[in-house]
Amino acid sequence: MIKDRLNSLNLVLPKTPKSAGLYVPVVITGNLVFVSGQLPIEQGSNSSYIKFGGKVGKDISLEDGKKAAQLCTMNALSQLEFALGSLDRVDKFIKISGYVNCEASFTEHPKIIDGASDLILQIFGEKGKHTRVALGMNSLPLNGAVEIDYIVAKE
Amino acid sequence: MIKDRLNSLNLVLPKTPKSAGLYVPVVITGNLVFVSGQLPIEQGSNSSYIKFGGKVGKDISLEDGKKAAQLCTMNALSQLEFALGSLDRVDKFIKISGYVNCEASFTEHPKIIDGASDLILQIFGEKGKHTRVALGMNSLPLNGAVEIDYIVAKE
Amino acid sequence: MIKDRLNSLNLVLPKTPKSAGLYVPVVITGNLVFVSGQLPIEQGSNSSYIKFGGKVGKDISLEDGKKAAQLCTMNALSQLEFALGSLDRVDKFIKISGYVNCEASFTEHPKIIDGASDLILQIFGEKGKHTRVALGMNSLPLNGAVEIDYIVAKE
Repeated sequence: MIKDRLNSLNLVLPKTPKSAGLYVPVVITGNLVFVSGQLPIEQGSNSSYIKFGGKVGKDISLEDGKKAAQLCTMNALSQLEFALGSLDRVDKFIKISGYVNCEASFTEHPKIIDGASDLILQIFGEKGKHTRVALGMNSLPLNGAVEIDYIVAKE
Repeated sequence: MIKDRLNSLNLVLPKTPKSAGLYVPVVITGNLVFVSGQLPIEQGSNSSYIKFGGKVGKDISLEDGKKAAQLCTMNALSQLEFALGSLDRVDKFIKISGYVNCEASFTEHPKIIDGASDLILQIFGEKGKHTRVALGMNSLPLNGAVEIDYIVAKE
Repeated sequence: MIKDRLNSLNLVLPKTPKSAGLYVPVVITGNLVFVSGQLPIEQGSNSSYIKFGGKVGKDISLEDGKKAAQLCTMNALSQLEFALGSLDRVDKFIKISGYVNCEASFTEHPKIIDGASDLILQIFGEKGKHTRVALGMNSLPLNGAVEIDYIVAKE
C-alpha cells in the first residue's frame, strides 16, 4: 500500500492546491490520467502561497530548486489521490515534464527535476519508472521556481 | 450541437491555417486526438499572418495576449472540425499546453491562457473541462505572442 | 523494413545514450510509446558528449541547429529500437515536441525542428506524419542546442 510507503518515508500528502486558472487538476481518459502543471505551492487553511519562487541558481539555490520539484510532486500526488480515491490505483508513471525557472546560462535542469523523479521512485518503486523531459523557462506562473505536469496510467 | 453553440456565441470558425513546417495539424490514435501547436494566425484568402505577435506584457497588452490565446483555440477548433468531420465528435478536452511569449519577469501566464480555457468551457461545457500547463517562453515561432497545443478524446 | 530504409539513406543508428537523470528512456502504455527528451548527444565507447551545444542562431548556425534536431531523432530511434525490438513495430508517429535553445529574438524554430520532422518522414513515410509543437527555450540541460521528445503508437 502506498499509504504505508508514505508513512515509512515520513511523508504526508498536502491539501490539494486550488487551480491557478480555469482548468481542472486531473482528467482521466481510458487508462490515462493527466495531471495539470503543479507549482511549488503550499496550501494553508485560508490561503496558499508559492513556497519556492524565483529563478533557480540565481534567486534560490539548487537544493531549494530540488525541494520545489518535490513539493510540486507532493501536490500532484495529493491531486491523484483525490481523483482516483487511492494512490494504489496508480498502475504506472508514464511521463513527467519538468520546467525550471532559470536564467539563460543555466544547465543543471536534470539535477533539479531529479528531486521529483527520485521521490516518485522512492514511493512507487518499479511502477514509478517514468519518461521525462526537463526544460529551462525564462518565467513561470506566479514566479514559481519549478512547474511539473504528469501523465500516469491507472489500473 | 456545437454548431448551434458557436452561433449563439457569435463565433465563426476560421479557415484552417497551414502548418508552419513539415508536420500535420491533427493525428488520431485510438480515442485520442492530438492537435499541433497553434499560433495566433489569421488565414486570409491568399496569405496568412500573425495577428498577435511579440512579447505579452511588453509588446502587446495582457488583453491582446488573451485574444491571442482565443485565436489559437479557434484555429485548433477549425483543425478539429476538419479532422473529425464535426466538433460534436469531441467527447472531452483532455489537456491544453499554453506557451506565452514574454520576458523573464512575467508572472501572469494563467490569465493569458484563461483566454483559451474560458472559450473552451463556453463552447463545450462539461466536456470542455481540461487539464492545463501554462509556461513562459523566451521566444515562439514567427514571433507569435502565444502558442497552444491540445489533446482531446473523441467518441 | 525500416532497416532497409535506413540503409538506403546511409543512416546508422547510434548507441543508445544514457539518461541525464533518474528516468528511463521509454515507457509503453497500451499502444502508446513515450520517449524521454532526447539531446544532441553523441555516445562514445566510454563517454558521451553534447555534439551541438549553445544557442541556435547565436552560438551555432541554423544549419547546425537542424543537425542537432536530426541527432536527437537518431537517438530517439535508437531508444525506440531497443525498447520495441524493431522499428518495424512503430505503427505511427503521433507527436514530437521540439525545444530550441535560443535568444529572445529568435523566430525560426520551425526550420530547426524540420530537421527532425523531415528525417522521420524520410524514414517512415506515411507512418511518419506527426503533430508537432516547436518552442523557444532560454536554456536546456547540459547546454544542448535542441531537445525533442516523442510519442509514437506501436502495433
